[in-house]
This record gives sequence, C-alpha cells and structure tokens, in this order.
Amino acid sequence: MTTSDRVEIAAIGPQRPRVLEALRAEFTLHEIAATDDVAAALGPAAGRVRGVVTSPMIGVSTKVMDALPNLEIAALFGVGLERTDLVAARERGVVVTTTPVLYEDVADLAVVLALDVTRRVTEADRWLRTGKWAAGGQFPSGHRFSRKRAGILGMGRIGRVLATRLAAFGMDVRYFDPKPATDVDYPLYPSGVELARDSDFLFLCAAGGPGQRNLVDAEMLSALGPQGVFVNISRGWLVDEDALVEAIVSGTIAGAGLDVFEDEPNVPQALRDADNVVLLPHIASNTEETRRDMDDCMVDNVRSWFAGNGAVTPAT
Amino acid sequence: MTTSDRVEIAAIGPQRPRVLEALRAEFTLHEIAATDDVAAALGPAAGRVRGVVTSPMIGVSTKVMDALPNLEIAALFGVGLERTDLVAARERGVVVTTTPVLYEDVADLAVVLALDVTRRVTEADRWLRTGKWAAGGQFPSGHRFSRKRAGILGMGRIGRVLATRLAAFGMDVRYFDPKPATDVDYPLYPSGVELARDSDFLFLCAAGGPGQRNLVDAEMLSALGPQGVFVNISRGWLVDEDALVEAIVSGTIAGAGLDVFEDEPNVPQALRDADNVVLLPHIASNTEETRRDMDDCMVDNVRSWFAGNGAVTPAT
Repeated sequence: MTTSDRVEIAAIGPQRPRVLEALRAEFTLHEIAATDDVAAALGPAAGRVRGVVTSPMIGVSTKVMDALPNLEIAALFGVGLERTDLVAARERGVVVTTTPVLYEDVADLAVVLALDVTRRVTEADRWLRTGKWAAGGQFPSGHRFSRKRAGILGMGRIGRVLATRLAAFGMDVRYFDPKPATDVDYPLYPSGVELARDSDFLFLCAAGGPGQRNLVDAEMLSALGPQGVFVNISRGWLVDEDALVEAIVSGTIAGAGLDVFEDEPNVPQALRDADNVVLLPHIASNTEETRRDMDDCMVDNVRSWFAGNGAVTPAT
Repeated sequence: MTTSDRVEIAAIGPQRPRVLEALRAEFTLHEIAATDDVAAALGPAAGRVRGVVTSPMIGVSTKVMDALPNLEIAALFGVGLERTDLVAARERGVVVTTTPVLYEDVADLAVVLALDVTRRVTEADRWLRTGKWAAGGQFPSGHRFSRKRAGILGMGRIGRVLATRLAAFGMDVRYFDPKPATDVDYPLYPSGVELARDSDFLFLCAAGGPGQRNLVDAEMLSALGPQGVFVNISRGWLVDEDALVEAIVSGTIAGAGLDVFEDEPNVPQALRDADNVVLLPHIASNTEETRRDMDDCMVDNVRSWFAGNGAVTPAT
C-alpha cells in the first residue's frame, strides 16, 4: 500500500504517543497545533483529510469543517461538546464521536471534592505540614458528610453514577434537570434555585449546552446558603465565577470544590488565598487507566469508521 | 441540696464547655489537667470522686483507679481503650463507657484519604496554588479509584461502615480479622500479609489491643506493593512508622493517607516532605456534629449511672 492509498487524518493539538502510534499504523497522520486556521496549517492536505482527532476544549467548529471539505469523522478525546458544532456537523454528514468512558472518574472526583471540603482535608494537611500541629495547635472541627442532602444539577450519566456513590453515605439525593430523568427515583426539583435551597451539597454535573452560561449564579449560591458546599466537575463557564468568588470569600456558602474554572489555567487569586476551597487543575478524568481507555476509544472510533463499521460512540 | 450532697466527678484533661456545664448542673466537678499523679492533683477530693470523664488518649490506668478508691464509672470521649485497663476496671467494679457514635465520620475519613491519595487531590491543590498550572504546567495523572480491591484490616464497626461505602465505588472488599465476622459476606483472608498482597488499598481499622504494636510492618507494606495505598484511621502505634516512612519514600508502596501517628503531634519530616501522602492531625471524628454527639453520649453515661439506670454505652 502506498502512502497515497491511505486515509488521511489530522490530529489537531497534542495527542499521547499511544494514539499517534495507533493512528500512524493505519493512516497518514498530519499533526498540527491548535490553531484558528486549520486550512493554512494543513496546506494542500486539507482537501484530503477525512478524519480529525482533537480535544473537546479545541473542538470542531464550522470553520474547521469549512477547511476540511472531505471530513467524515471528528473524534473527540472527552465528552464536552461546547466547542463543536453538532448541528452543523450533522448537516454536513460529519459524525462526531466522544469517549464516554470517564463517568466513574468524574463522579469519584466530585465525591472526594465534597468530602475534602466538608472534612477540611486539604486544609488540615497544609496546616499540619507547616508545623502547626507539632507546635501544639488544635485543628478546628469540620462537618459530618454522611446523611446530608445532596442536590445534583444535571442528572446525566455522571450525575447518576454520583448519586449511587452518595447514597452509600446515607445521602438524601435530589436533582434538577431541564430534561427530567424518567428512569431514576430521586425527587426532581422545579429549578436549580429551589434545589440549592434544600441541599447541603450542590453538585454541578450539567453537560453544558447553549444558553447555559452562568447557570449557577449569585441567586443560586445564596439559596445554597452558609452551610452549603458547591462542587463543580463540569465546566467553569457554567458558573458566574465572580459571584462564586464573592460567595466563598464572604461566607454566603461554606466552601467549594472546583475542578474547572472560567479562564483555565487561570484561577482567581482570591480562591488561591482561600482555605475553604479545594482547587484542582481540571483532572476529573485524569487517571492513567481512564486516559488509556479514552485514547483507545477515540482511536477505535476512527478505525471502525474507516473499516466501514460506523462509529462506536457517536455523540447524540 | 448542699454541695456535700452532690456526687463528685473529676474531669481529667480538657473538656468542652457543653460537657462542663452539663456536669456542673448535677455534680460537683473537679477539673484537673492530665497528670501522672491524679491523687495529688485532686487532694482530699480523691477519696470522694465517684466518676471520671476523660479522653482515651489519657485513659484510666490502674494507677488512676488506685488514686480513686470510690470510683464507679469512667466515661471516655471516644472509643480507644489502649490506655484504660478494662480488666482491672472490671475487677474493681468500675464501669468504663465509650462514645460509639463516631463510626460514620471515621469511615468517611478513610474513604476521603484513599480517594485523595489515589486521585492526587491535595497534591494537585498545592501544585495549582503555587501557580504551576497558570505557568503552563500539566499535572501528572493519578489513578482510578473505582472497581479496585480494598483490603480491610479489622472488620469491626468502622470496617463495616467503610465496606458499605467502598462497595458503592464498585470496590471488591476483602478483610482480615483475628476474630472473623460471622455476619458479613466479604472474603476473609488468613493473614494481614496475604490480604495486603491481594489489595490495591489497605485500610487499617483495627481497634488495637495488647500485642498489636507494629501490626503493620515492612513485610505487610512490601506485600501491598508499589501500586498499593495504605490508609490509617486507627492508631499510629499499630504501625511500624519507620518501615512506613521507608516504604513511602522508596516507592515500596504508592502512597498513604494517615490520620494518626506514633508520636502525635510529631510527624516525621520525611512524611511532611512527601507528595504521595495526605497527613491529617487526628481528625477522624472531629466534626461539629459528632463531637456534640460524643459530648452528649459521655455525659448521658455519667448521668444515667448516678440516676441508678446503669451505663448507656459500656465498653465490652
């Protein structure tokens, strides 16, 4: 088989060696950096590229699709669709795939964030390491985690796994979702604000669609209240970050566990100075096991498509 | 009622205002610091004291019982019995009570320690706060928590609650206990070393009795292995701390979550310098809700005893 017989694929932005090697074994692979001008970066190959692999944070916009007239499949590493135009893709017959193998890790991170903030784990570790225990200090009490009320914003696949975990801690789970889940028994609330008002923990698990910017705002945080803990393992732009910072600093809420931020990797200094928050660098799916599963899932989608067997995990 | 009609009680070591107020309302209360010479600290009152409240870390030794010839009840704030001579107490007709209302908090702390070490939460928070994310760094991957093998050393009340929590994460729970639990279905291992060899997480939940010093030693840690995480929410003296430090620093095990240490509040500097550990200042039951429940439980035992209704939660 000569190179010209091979299907041509573009990797936009970095991929791990496991992915690059698997793709190179079957396809002609063009590696380019994340760019606003995919056409220029690919040059004449742009007209031949039939598949793309990229991250959801880069995404496949209409502009990218314009630059790749023969694109058939866009395989994303992750599940976020906020930078990929699914409607435009459908119109052009481009199949978009995600890697729906990360739900457990994301739900687990939500649990540890909530537990950590409530029991003051990261704060206590910091306190101990700086020698305050050895100097005779008494670390202040945290709060009990078990048997509290957990509000889940967005009862999708992550929300469901999370609910199962929380139930084992005796948590009373309730949720809000604009599309009510017909197959779960947890009480559905009529709005996020009403959910927050009746929750000790508010977990943001929404997938994040159009019109959802600042879904969590000052009103919802105020409803959560001074004993409430907010956890975000979804997307930073779904939260009014200024309102969140204000709520954390002023005691409007008790604290927060945050894996995502509005302008990553920048985290407001007021949060970095706060003791009642745990701040993570977007690692909800960042485990060796899951990254490997996501790599394989993304590659399998491309392989399966060009073997004529269709996509394995198309986005819906 | 004159003071001399009142039952006299000694509080050895500090108690919180809630406890002091409740006891003063009904009893003549003598407050003394933790001391090796209770007789001297109490003076002539020693012969009149019929009840003691204290912490398990101070305990009620035979020497204390010798100093208090009319002691009827020793009420401990907590469940540890390593510094209280239960056999001697029985011989003298002294009832010892504990506060068995902390199991959920302790089990929850074990979960968060295991999750935190595995997902590198406290480490990532430290990394982010020092500006490494904003500077363009990529935080390394942690490991998946779900669906791993959890070994529980000591299937008592804490171990059972912990097992229920872990099962909700798809964990495969197994245990070792010199007294096999007849009412649980988890596989029983013939020894701690064999348990460690087949576990990704080793949770030390033993109550800690005579002859158990250094129950967890170099051999057991070596059996746990380089992917294994050790969690201790029990007692520091049950672990060979030198062997544990060596295992953590050398990579014999992947990491550890530790709430207790051999010589509290002193924590070896090698641990305080390590990134693969989470170090807590003995806070497993330190939540406002549970401390209040423990306060009330301790006071209720003393009250009930002197009202002629017996102890509420005697140690067995």
